[in-house]
Amino acid sequence: MTSKPAIYLDYNATAPIRPEAREAVLRAFEQAGNPSSVHAAGRAARDVVETARRQVGELVGVVAGSVTFVSGGTEANALAIESAVASGVKRLVVSAIEHDAVAETAAAASGLPVAVLPVDTQGVADLSSLPEMLAGEDRTLVCLMLANNETGVIQPVAEASAIVRAADGLLHVDAVQAAGKIAIDFSALGADTLALSAHKIGGPQGVGALVAGTRANVVRRQHGGGQERGRRAGTENVAGISGFGAAAAAALRDLPQAADQGIWRDALAQRVRDAGGVVLGEGAGRLPQTLCLAAEGFASQVQVMNLDLAGVMVSAGSACSSGKVKASRVVEAMGRSDLAPFALRVSGGWASTEADWIVCGDAWLAAWKRIGARRREVA
Amino acid sequence: MTSKPAIYLDYNATAPIRPEAREAVLRAFEQAGNPSSVHAAGRAARDVVETARRQVGELVGVVAGSVTFVSGGTEANALAIESAVASGVKRLVVSAIEHDAVAETAAAASGLPVAVLPVDTQGVADLSSLPEMLAGEDRTLVCLMLANNETGVIQPVAEASAIVRAADGLLHVDAVQAAGKIAIDFSALGADTLALSAHKIGGPQGVGALVAGTRANVVRRQHGGGQERGRRAGTENVAGISGFGAAAAAALRDLPQAADQGIWRDALAQRVRDAGGVVLGEGAGRLPQTLCLAAEGFASQVQVMNLDLAGVMVSAGSACSSGKVKASRVVEAMGRSDLAPFALRVSGGWASTEADWIVCGDAWLAAWKRIGARRREVA
Repeated sequence: MTSKPAIYLDYNATAPIRPEAREAVLRAFEQAGNPSSVHAAGRAARDVVETARRQVGELVGVVAGSVTFVSGGTEANALAIESAVASGVKRLVVSAIEHDAVAETAAAASGLPVAVLPVDTQGVADLSSLPEMLAGEDRTLVCLMLANNETGVIQPVAEASAIVRAADGLLHVDAVQAAGKIAIDFSALGADTLALSAHKIGGPQGVGALVAGTRANVVRRQHGGGQERGRRAGTENVAGISGFGAAAAAALRDLPQAADQGIWRDALAQRVRDAGGVVLGEGAGRLPQTLCLAAEGFASQVQVMNLDLAGVMVSAGSACSSGKVKASRVVEAMGRSDLAPFALRVSGGWASTEADWIVCGDAWLAAWKRIGARRREVA
Repeated sequence: MTSKPAIYLDYNATAPIRPEAREAVLRAFEQAGNPSSVHAAGRAARDVVETARRQVGELVGVVAGSVTFVSGGTEANALAIESAVASGVKRLVVSAIEHDAVAETAAAASGLPVAVLPVDTQGVADLSSLPEMLAGEDRTLVCLMLANNETGVIQPVAEASAIVRAADGLLHVDAVQAAGKIAIDFSALGADTLALSAHKIGGPQGVGALVAGTRANVVRRQHGGGQERGRRAGTENVAGISGFGAAAAAALRDLPQAADQGIWRDALAQRVRDAGGVVLGEGAGRLPQTLCLAAEGFASQVQVMNLDLAGVMVSAGSACSSGKVKASRVVEAMGRSDLAPFALRVSGGWASTEADWIVCGDAWLAAWKRIGARRREVA
């Protein structure tokens, strides 16, 4: 048994599991069935999976049949991109702030040309060049995330969809970070495919889903059994899927409270600005629980380590790069390379309290004061 | 809450989770960290993953660094085959009794030629033609499972390895069904890669591992973050991996008791033979807990349903084909197409008792007697 973290504000890396999800996992463990088995335990496991499929569908406003369960957000993004390529897409357009799971999968996709859609200084995708990018005969897949993992900035997905559809392209939306934090309506977004991850909404790690609309084929990339209606071979992660479903239901229920994080987040943002720091993307619509700040001279990793010593867990940019803290590619794309080495991400979630945000601010300001004093001594 | 299955003898489809694995999952849930995060919760999650990596390695006699965690046995097999292809293999040889996860991945692998290695009437791979299949310039990947999922028949992997290495080929071993049931020594087998699945040994579903030796490259097929030392992108399934590690340790500890299943299995086999049934592969070395039987005129699905009504859960062939019961491809490969529609698989495991096997036999004999009486009435 390890001690519970004092203050955890790194939900965009992974969220603590919700009690509802934990219970669902445990219930599924009791059943011990393979959903492909025709006997009683198999049928019970099948029911568990299909209940969760309905719950995950409801989180984004689709019927259960639109949902394919996979092993996580990375696989969901890969399945979307590789399916589009297998369906005849010849070019890719990827926003400059996509997660590595999208950017690197696109780069690896059969050597197809990949164009980068820029973002403005607030971190919002600039769609003005998109029609030109889509001109020509070749069918194009556009990848635009719903909300950025580092800044929380919400992207103009519905507007992009109108442009993509006019050009008969396909639109893939990585909604891994947005889900459970803002309301999502798959149809209103005009997405063709949409990626979700359980552990970002308080479900277990190792489970995700690809939602696909009527214009998209899901072409299996993992072969073997006929699971997921032939879209993804391999015994279903019944317990994980059940936890995902329960987390989706809880996240949907708690959406009205999710906005509270924004009030506490903004209070911290004000303290950061008062101390001479900068808040990135604050001019744009953002997820309520994500704060991306920077203070020149206060290196990202020094911030993370100082806060960690104070018992406050946050992160520098994406956590997904094997523990290495590197300058934020997202902040660079916003034209703020000067701030990229100094960016810090604070992200709350379902169990975060106002006190968490206040203590985080206290710790950050104390560390920043120490650093500033030292800098003045050196100068 | 569903009631616990009366008698579950379908471990080859999925095993009930071991208490040690369940506890490990719950402990990991308490920690709530992303192993890529540099703060305390991240470091704790990293420790959990690395402990499990050591435990899974120990189950097959390799160091932790040889283990790559993936989402299950199907992905482990796919990663092995696709890595070999990416490393320059130009041909594949696949035994006639491989699981669909291997057979279909091989068939889908870049359109390379796939030769089928036959099995004898006992279901043992016939290696006499293997040297000829490996002749020529092109490097070849041979896929030979360690034990078959339907019959339990153990394959001559070390002998195959000698032939494969003499021809400078690569050998992939699907050990998903063998693990935890017989001792496995990766080096003694002479495998280059070896696939494992957590849920077949009493761990959670949705986790697996690929073990790779020094002659094999693991080439990532899922792109994004740098997890698993660049071999498999995506946030680690920390809780699932932890459960896998705990299950591996428990399975290794319990190996001496695993042989007991063979005594109870053989007692049931005798009752089946006395009633006019046939036991498939009984002349070969088999996993102690797997029984594949057939009784002409007693259709597989009728057997499964009759036993299910009696509260005994077993299966017909592989459970992985989306609930459909079809004639066993494995039994056909053994030259017993006459018996393929009548094959039944009974498979015990860590929680199975002698009484389970006896009650299963009682139920099977009672159903067979009813069917036989009806057949005589009709005749």
